[in-house]
Amino acid sequence: MIIVLKPEATEPQIDHLLDRLRELGLKTHMTQGEERTIIGVIGDDRILQNQPITAFPGVESVTPILAPWKLVSREFKKDNTVIDVCGVKVGGQKLAIMAGPCAVEKLELTVGIAHEVKAAGGSILRGGAYKPRTSPYSFQGVGREGLDYLLEAKRQTGMPVVSEILDTRDIELFLQKADIIQIGARNMQNFELLKEVGAYDKPVLLKRGLSATLKEFLLSAEYIMSRGNRNVILCERGIRTFETQYRNTLDLAAVPTLKELSHLPVIVDPSHATGKWNLVAPMAKAAVAAGADGLLIEVHSNPECALCDGEESIKPSKFKELMQDLRKIAVAVGREI
Amino acid sequence: MIIVLKPEATEPQIDHLLDRLRELGLKTHMTQGEERTIIGVIGDDRILQNQPITAFPGVESVTPILAPWKLVSREFKKDNTVIDVCGVKVGGQKLAIMAGPCAVEKLELTVGIAHEVKAAGGSILRGGAYKPRTSPYSFQGVGREGLDYLLEAKRQTGMPVVSEILDTRDIELFLQKADIIQIGARNMQNFELLKEVGAYDKPVLLKRGLSATLKEFLLSAEYIMSRGNRNVILCERGIRTFETQYRNTLDLAAVPTLKELSHLPVIVDPSHATGKWNLVAPMAKAAVAAGADGLLIEVHSNPECALCDGEESIKPSKFKELMQDLRKIAVAVGREI
Amino acid sequence: MIIVLKPEATEPQIDHLLDRLRELGLKTHMTQGEERTIIGVIGDDRILQNQPITAFPGVESVTPILAPWKLVSREFKKDNTVIDVCGVKVGGQKLAIMAGPCAVEKLELTVGIAHEVKAAGGSILRGGAYKPRTSPYSFQGVGREGLDYLLEAKRQTGMPVVSEILDTRDIELFLQKADIIQIGARNMQNFELLKEVGAYDKPVLLKRGLSATLKEFLLSAEYIMSRGNRNVILCERGIRTFETQYRNTLDLAAVPTLKELSHLPVIVDPSHATGKWNLVAPMAKAAVAAGADGLLIEVHSNPECALCDGEESIKPSKFKELMQDLRKIAVAVGREI
Amino acid sequence: MIIVLKPEATEPQIDHLLDRLRELGLKTHMTQGEERTIIGVIGDDRILQNQPITAFPGVESVTPILAPWKLVSREFKKDNTVIDVCGVKVGGQKLAIMAGPCAVEKLELTVGIAHEVKAAGGSILRGGAYKPRTSPYSFQGVGREGLDYLLEAKRQTGMPVVSEILDTRDIELFLQKADIIQIGARNMQNFELLKEVGAYDKPVLLKRGLSATLKEFLLSAEYIMSRGNRNVILCERGIRTFETQYRNTLDLAAVPTLKELSHLPVIVDPSHATGKWNLVAPMAKAAVAAGADGLLIEVHSNPECALCDGEESIKPSKFKELMQDLRKIAVAVGREI
Repeated sequence: MIIVLKPEATEPQIDHLLDRLRELGLKTHMTQGEERTIIGVIGDDRILQNQPITAFPGVESVTPILAPWKLVSREFKKDNTVIDVCGVKVGGQKLAIMAGPCAVEKLELTVGIAHEVKAAGGSILRGGAYKPRTSPYSFQGVGREGLDYLLEAKRQTGMPVVSEILDTRDIELFLQKADIIQIGARNMQNFELLKEVGAYDKPVLLKRGLSATLKEFLLSAEYIMSRGNRNVILCERGIRTFETQYRNTLDLAAVPTLKELSHLPVIVDPSHATGKWNLVAPMAKAAVAAGADGLLIEVHSNPECALCDGEESIKPSKFKELMQDLRKIAVAVGREI
Repeated sequence: MIIVLKPEATEPQIDHLLDRLRELGLKTHMTQGEERTIIGVIGDDRILQNQPITAFPGVESVTPILAPWKLVSREFKKDNTVIDVCGVKVGGQKLAIMAGPCAVEKLELTVGIAHEVKAAGGSILRGGAYKPRTSPYSFQGVGREGLDYLLEAKRQTGMPVVSEILDTRDIELFLQKADIIQIGARNMQNFELLKEVGAYDKPVLLKRGLSATLKEFLLSAEYIMSRGNRNVILCERGIRTFETQYRNTLDLAAVPTLKELSHLPVIVDPSHATGKWNLVAPMAKAAVAAGADGLLIEVHSNPECALCDGEESIKPSKFKELMQDLRKIAVAVGREI
Repeated sequence: MIIVLKPEATEPQIDHLLDRLRELGLKTHMTQGEERTIIGVIGDDRILQNQPITAFPGVESVTPILAPWKLVSREFKKDNTVIDVCGVKVGGQKLAIMAGPCAVEKLELTVGIAHEVKAAGGSILRGGAYKPRTSPYSFQGVGREGLDYLLEAKRQTGMPVVSEILDTRDIELFLQKADIIQIGARNMQNFELLKEVGAYDKPVLLKRGLSATLKEFLLSAEYIMSRGNRNVILCERGIRTFETQYRNTLDLAAVPTLKELSHLPVIVDPSHATGKWNLVAPMAKAAVAAGADGLLIEVHSNPECALCDGEESIKPSKFKELMQDLRKIAVAVGREI
Repeated sequence: MIIVLKPEATEPQIDHLLDRLRELGLKTHMTQGEERTIIGVIGDDRILQNQPITAFPGVESVTPILAPWKLVSREFKKDNTVIDVCGVKVGGQKLAIMAGPCAVEKLELTVGIAHEVKAAGGSILRGGAYKPRTSPYSFQGVGREGLDYLLEAKRQTGMPVVSEILDTRDIELFLQKADIIQIGARNMQNFELLKEVGAYDKPVLLKRGLSATLKEFLLSAEYIMSRGNRNVILCERGIRTFETQYRNTLDLAAVPTLKELSHLPVIVDPSHATGKWNLVAPMAKAAVAAGADGLLIEVHSNPECALCDGEESIKPSKFKELMQDLRKIAVAVGREI
């Protein structure tokens, strides 16, 4: 940590600060510049996360040197983490394509879409049983039985399933019925939920919050890992900006950046990112070109009648076409599907 | 709802859409413009919240006419809602000043600050027992016993207490020990938590999410009200923008706007909004001038040693001075403290 | 245009409004909903751009139906615009790769980089003679003679050149010496400059402003086209968000969206968008996969010594590698380089 | 400047960097931490503004210690700058209230509004002769003769006038006819225009750009001051965020922050910030409570017919009421009007 002092900082103020740092077991190193004095703090400056150093009189600014996370970092683990989900690898050479309806509605519909996803080359089935909706008057998901529909689809197609948890009280249910537990964007900083899923080794798909910096995103992953669960998949799904042409702004530079900072797999959700079915294909292709380890795509056989997010769902036929295009892009960047 | 059709929309596409609207019991009204055809939907267009109209072929755009909320709206209830918290009114002529430490740390400290807050004219004691922290390595709050410290401070000073809930599993505890349950910014769209606090009539202080539009904010309040709880206090606490000089950007235009759209009381938290103790006083004054019904301010007797957010806490002496200034501003805008 | 009236709007208020609309030669169509009355305005509602309809008493909201632009729209011209720049096509089947140093510094350096860009397959030479810099103490460009260095590089390599104009007073100079005049992000709403370049038929590369919506971006292009110049190239170069890991957030969904709304060619600048040389390659690939018509890339033989934006420049050897990868992606999306 | 090295930085890489710093006449100071090595650069690190230090191999990050500006800083000049505009002080104890129509339209209208502004206690007349408009089809201002209308209003009321310049070619005209030259938000980084107005001592009202950080805002002021003009007034006018309820988000924390960082006067424009007439009064009051040195308010006798921004203009009668309220707030914060 680098502490910059105000030009008017007094001797007693500086001594007071140095004493506090020494108490915490940190070594310091002062540099007298022409216009400012700087204190370099040597030792693990993460100790200072609970210390409001800028509240000390005489302090102008504070800059941490070390990243605030450990377990998620590329420095901690050089090799890419590859997560095995019932035999499907996420984070390896082969891209993981997760697809399915936004919300699970009926058994036959779910199973039908699952077969089409599988036939087109999808490897994991997505579907929401519990739906976080902005309005209390919107469809809230079919709940518990939705997970059973997904299980049936899994039984028939062999694809593992990913579904979103909303409440700490549902953890047992999800441990039993889902192969990947999804934490949605709105819950990225629901720390109690992060701690809960961190206590098991069930794979977790963690979505970036609408206004989360990559730093906050990685710290949320660190919450899960620090509880013991090493199977975290990061998912970029668009951030909130001023632009109103699409629901969110897909931030694809996050993909190579996250992969540089962390060893965890990074996938992209072009459906929620854009909220528009006609942007799904170009953004899916761009994500693969940018180096994503997989995709999360909404597919629905009748988007007009989808009870949730029909606007952004593509039909199975479009999905099939898209998969063909994605295969070519994957090859062009040295991957496969 | 206004549906604008694409110039190339075909007759069968239009009929298909009109049929669907009719099925839903809605009347329609077509207007042939020079360059576009428009369908006005008559009836309660909230029915359409679950219908992906833009997924219909031939549709260019959809604009809702009615606000998506009901119970929170000024149209639904003309008069300001005044919430009684153990005798302290929130939303009335007198401003509600909620103050105290960010995190409750020790009993004596908490009680000591409470006495100083009370002496300076504060009316409600704030303090966090459970703390949502960006990093898993930061101080997470003292938990359950923190609520007991607040209760003791309440016993001694008579001030009701507000504290933040993080987990649906803690609802019983908060119903017993807090006078206002706070839902923090990071949980504004933790819909399960909203539904949970909505099931009782305990006052709820709902903070605006870091990247929540006012529309989303009001819909989260609607979640609580739609479950039966009418005692919701809205709190503006800064939004996330590109500016890095302060932690968030305090959006004071939200105050008159929320009061125009809704009958609920609106308070402002200048401490979390700015993250800097020296901005707390000017922003507190500005909030009162803008028409806020109250403030939520962090006060700590020794900010340097605060285990959480010391940077933004002001000392009791500063708080006392501020209260004197606020009284003058309150009078200038026809209110009192 | 759709005008929604307040529930409490009075008869005289409505008549007053209808009179005004009639005066403007517009036909109206009223629809009485259950909770609101709506006035549909028939005719070219662009007439209303100068009318503050929301300032009329009784009006709740106003929604335009038609896009505010004409000449730039895909509706106005169905086919893609292909711009011929000294024989190099921008907007056609073949991607236009514009590359070169951020700032032109010295003659030999410029010519040297130009040869390397050409050898690697670049088609247009970029280079800034006048540089807009955030700080008055940063290098401001070599000015007029920089354009001569570019001309010499053009003479030797045959590549046309693109360079940025900053001041209306320099228009003659740029008409003589540049093949494409660039309007930078900070000048996207320098309307006098837009009008000036609009008066000629010299191709213009218009960069999206840091916080410009696509609507504003297209309106700036409309400024140029409405003066007579039909040769406008749109360039996405990242927008300002809260994320601080990279200089800006590259908004690739803008590419298919702009191409849907407009017939103009759309290119992407991954260098300025990210400000980091190691993000240039993945974002360039993603841009091509998303459907961009070309790229604008900073290449410098010695980034450490570049007087401007060295952080985001790649070396010629990296550029050569990148071009090989881009060729594969281009083929995968049905284009070529 | 603090340079943090990558853990894998090699000896030759470090030597290469140290050599370069020494060449530039800077002293360095190395600190070996447990996980990182840090180089403190002593001497005026503004020298490094043109050096892409992060492009050097082995460098992880770079943090400047000194603010990048000089002349605008509070450190450079402790006392508040008070600017004299034809006898009206801006930046002193008395608040400067600038008011008038958004766009100057006709002579009598302009003079009429001026008299009403004056009567209500306004001190400076605002009015746009040249208007920067998002659409080329919107009213672009009456141009040169608008300045004459303002001059006539000045002659009759004695109020100095402020008007916006759009083009470097108009500088002579504005030097003759305006008392304060306004640089609008869209031109805050039109550096050629900044340099031009910097060459004279005519007061300049510089508006913050829609997405400008305070750092960029102050650097634009530094552009003007570095050319010799010391009479710069800063104006906060709202920034672009995701919120769509108002045109921009007024950032009032900018007021105390700018006054801490700089000695220049800071005023607030609540009209453009919100784009809604009913938010002008609460935001004007909040601005004064936050410590603003003045206000810029749109007043129009017939907002319905205003050719520009009628939505955000208040009538003279409302302005008069507002002035009465503002006087009380001013007194409450130790100022006067």
